[in-house]
Amino acid sequence: MAWLRYLSKLTNKKTSHRPKITDPFLLLPPFNFLSHFSSNTNVAKPFTNHTNSGSGLEPTKPNEKPRVVVLGSGWAGCRFMKGLDTNIYDIVCVSPRNHMVFTPLLASTCVGTLEFRSVAEPIGRIQPAISREPGSYFFLANCIGIDAHKHMVQCETITDEVQTIDPWRFTVSYDKLVIALGSQPSTFGIQGVKEHASFLREVHHAQEIRRKLLLNLMLSDVPGISVEEKKRLLHCVVVGGGPTGVEFSGELSDFIMKDVRLRYTHVKDYIRVTLIEANEILSSFDDRLRRYATKQLTKSGVRLVRGIVKDVKAQKIILDDGTEVPYGLLVWSTGVGPSPFIQSLDLPKAPGGRIGVDEWLRVPSVQDVFSIGDCSGFLESTGRQTLPALAQVAERQGKYLAQVLNKIGKTGAGYANSEKEVEFGEPFVYKHLGSMATIGRYKALVDLRQNKEGKGLALAGFFSFFIWRSAYITRVVSWRNRFYVFINWVTTLVFGRDISRL
Amino acid sequence: MAWLRYLSKLTNKKTSHRPKITDPFLLLPPFNFLSHFSSNTNVAKPFTNHTNSGSGLEPTKPNEKPRVVVLGSGWAGCRFMKGLDTNIYDIVCVSPRNHMVFTPLLASTCVGTLEFRSVAEPIGRIQPAISREPGSYFFLANCIGIDAHKHMVQCETITDEVQTIDPWRFTVSYDKLVIALGSQPSTFGIQGVKEHASFLREVHHAQEIRRKLLLNLMLSDVPGISVEEKKRLLHCVVVGGGPTGVEFSGELSDFIMKDVRLRYTHVKDYIRVTLIEANEILSSFDDRLRRYATKQLTKSGVRLVRGIVKDVKAQKIILDDGTEVPYGLLVWSTGVGPSPFIQSLDLPKAPGGRIGVDEWLRVPSVQDVFSIGDCSGFLESTGRQTLPALAQVAERQGKYLAQVLNKIGKTGAGYANSEKEVEFGEPFVYKHLGSMATIGRYKALVDLRQNKEGKGLALAGFFSFFIWRSAYITRVVSWRNRFYVFINWVTTLVFGRDISRL
Repeated sequence: MAWLRYLSKLTNKKTSHRPKITDPFLLLPPFNFLSHFSSNTNVAKPFTNHTNSGSGLEPTKPNEKPRVVVLGSGWAGCRFMKGLDTNIYDIVCVSPRNHMVFTPLLASTCVGTLEFRSVAEPIGRIQPAISREPGSYFFLANCIGIDAHKHMVQCETITDEVQTIDPWRFTVSYDKLVIALGSQPSTFGIQGVKEHASFLREVHHAQEIRRKLLLNLMLSDVPGISVEEKKRLLHCVVVGGGPTGVEFSGELSDFIMKDVRLRYTHVKDYIRVTLIEANEILSSFDDRLRRYATKQLTKSGVRLVRGIVKDVKAQKIILDDGTEVPYGLLVWSTGVGPSPFIQSLDLPKAPGGRIGVDEWLRVPSVQDVFSIGDCSGFLESTGRQTLPALAQVAERQGKYLAQVLNKIGKTGAGYANSEKEVEFGEPFVYKHLGSMATIGRYKALVDLRQNKEGKGLALAGFFSFFIWRSAYITRVVSWRNRFYVFINWVTTLVFGRDISRL
Repeated sequence: MAWLRYLSKLTNKKTSHRPKITDPFLLLPPFNFLSHFSSNTNVAKPFTNHTNSGSGLEPTKPNEKPRVVVLGSGWAGCRFMKGLDTNIYDIVCVSPRNHMVFTPLLASTCVGTLEFRSVAEPIGRIQPAISREPGSYFFLANCIGIDAHKHMVQCETITDEVQTIDPWRFTVSYDKLVIALGSQPSTFGIQGVKEHASFLREVHHAQEIRRKLLLNLMLSDVPGISVEEKKRLLHCVVVGGGPTGVEFSGELSDFIMKDVRLRYTHVKDYIRVTLIEANEILSSFDDRLRRYATKQLTKSGVRLVRGIVKDVKAQKIILDDGTEVPYGLLVWSTGVGPSPFIQSLDLPKAPGGRIGVDEWLRVPSVQDVFSIGDCSGFLESTGRQTLPALAQVAERQGKYLAQVLNKIGKTGAGYANSEKEVEFGEPFVYKHLGSMATIGRYKALVDLRQNKEGKGLALAGFFSFFIWRSAYITRVVSWRNRFYVFINWVTTLVFGRDISRL
């Protein structure tokens, strides 16, 4: 039968073009872990015996390019990969998602101002070598252990509950390791946050928020739902008054004022947005801009409440003064901290539990390990302050480290344990370029000063919004997405936001 | 506190603008059904006591417009709603999805040629009255029972496992009822199809296929995966050689030849598409076109296998001759049949278990009930053949029925039990406009003859592909989606297909 001939033909075919993968497990059954692992809940695991036997990518040989392994695909990791010279290095990226999220525009996708795909850049578009070079790879997996002495990491594939194959462990040897695993939302130990609140850091978070919002809009219109229940369902509560919380509140109020009024006329009078913040909103901006933001948000119908969340239940949150706030949608954006995996790593630590690095972003006490982005911070011994968990910090670090590794790679010191005599050059210095935040209704804040007391441009209003959009559209990585962000903005203006619940 | 003032203010506010909803359940706890109901598994349920008490939309009063209730939001239901005169009628649509799927373009979304949202039209865009008129509604719910004698339907909200509110039952009284609930994929009682295969009828099916395909492409690249396993993971099997199966196979081979070769170079030689069909592929087209399609598909690397599937396991299917076919992705498109809910309805039936209708698409033996689209068929007594389950049949029936109801509505016979003396006019006559199918590589078949023996245009090749695209882009309902389909086609040509796994 043709089918069988095909199978046997394929089986006999030599597949010699991937010489570096060893297959000692070919005949072993795969691991039988059916649960879904995410990097947020993982802690570093001791290397198990069978993985020490070498299934995976072996150490590079002298006739091969040195291999840089990058853990993570956020701002830091992707900017690093983009900058790395692939004539010198092979790149292996290990991450549970195959794209980078353009986070400053993520809030816009929750209500349909932008399409989800417009803010996601596949890693292969950022660094094409990863999908083309025979020695470069992208692995859809979580890193579950680092053995810095053996120069290898242990990984486990994610299977995302689609049971086409069981989770699979493998190791990857590296010449240089770049840990860029980011951070996770802080819940401050408050009960119920993880179970009931939505975060806003990944595309699937934005998708979840959108689905919940549209579901609540439709369910609140059903006969027999009490007025009280309608109000609860349509009460959107945002906890955390940083740029993410404020931008999301602004987008939400735009959606309500333009699209809900037009397309959910039956329930439009019941929908409300409340922003809860323990201190000041947008504390990184100066008083004048903050007052402007407060005024504009209030005008748009966003209720600003000062309070501390004590407890989160399925349909209400409880503040520390005992007030109960019923909600239909709860978005949590109170800042970030290191993940349990980062905390559990046996590496030097910076204050706050991040991986500690020196001025050149190296992790001391181990060879060839670097850490960039939200998961790392300067060691106390450097005398430097920990930098804020911002995209621009992560991006600058990625760019810097790529330049450093390119430089030492050119001297032939790209291989493991070979950089001892190499000059690393200038240490990393962060220069803050300023902050921006939209607040809805075509208004934004732009503060281009290095700090609140510094000199420079600090604007609020429509012109700032224009600067905000112009700045971000030029920052979008690929021409494809730049085109789509523009097209999405135009169609939102012309046709309104789409309300299909897909 | 401001928060409490807000709550009490809202509670005191009169909400008198929705006079038709009665709320006898305001103080009752909601129903405690936590399981997720879908229309596919529902069967009609007897009306329970409490819903007889009248929670929901009561019968219309003489000073109100008559109410047409539409069950379903597919081609038939949506075309009907679009055509209905909302100056005469109020419309209530009950459906578990708030959009219509432009099914002929759905296969293109699985591989990213088109974006999912480009093929989904929100019902409010098709019939704006549904979101604006005070007496018209869209309810995100499944119909779980029809009481044709009392002129009411019973519904239950879907909650989609987002537990913001428990499923909720309510009734809707109608003056006219239009059952347009569509069909469901036929599995012919084969074990394992529902568990392991993906269908291709809804946007979430296409999303699932895309996620699986990209997952398999990435997992197959992981070190330690055997060659055999790689081949299995990257073996895409399509069962059913109708237009859907062929178009999906064509799209898949385009994706492989253009995008996988470029972006998954490590595994590009392992990916295969097999199309399994028990008889001829594209049996509705004539021999010449079919031969052309077979040749083109084979050229594109699609393996055509004639066989009957006997059993479906998690990672392989078994054909009736005992051949085992391992797969990583299995798409099932072997035709459709009536859902258990349709079968369980106590209404006259047409051959095959569909709801039986007369020449005017009325369900005899009950007053004011009509049925259109895949869920209905002509009664044997009409002497007419059951029409094929095609979008164009459903659409033409929707259009016809809207005209009929508009006509009788103008004579004042739109209310319940008032049409006895009304002339319905010409019966429904279906005229087949022809068939089209893409087969990949910018090739398509176009057969504009009424039947295989008739006269007219029957073409295959690039010009047909041009006709195919031109025809469908003009059929897309809204200007927004027409624009996006065009833009998607252009960017696919320029930038290739997006491979972010969102």
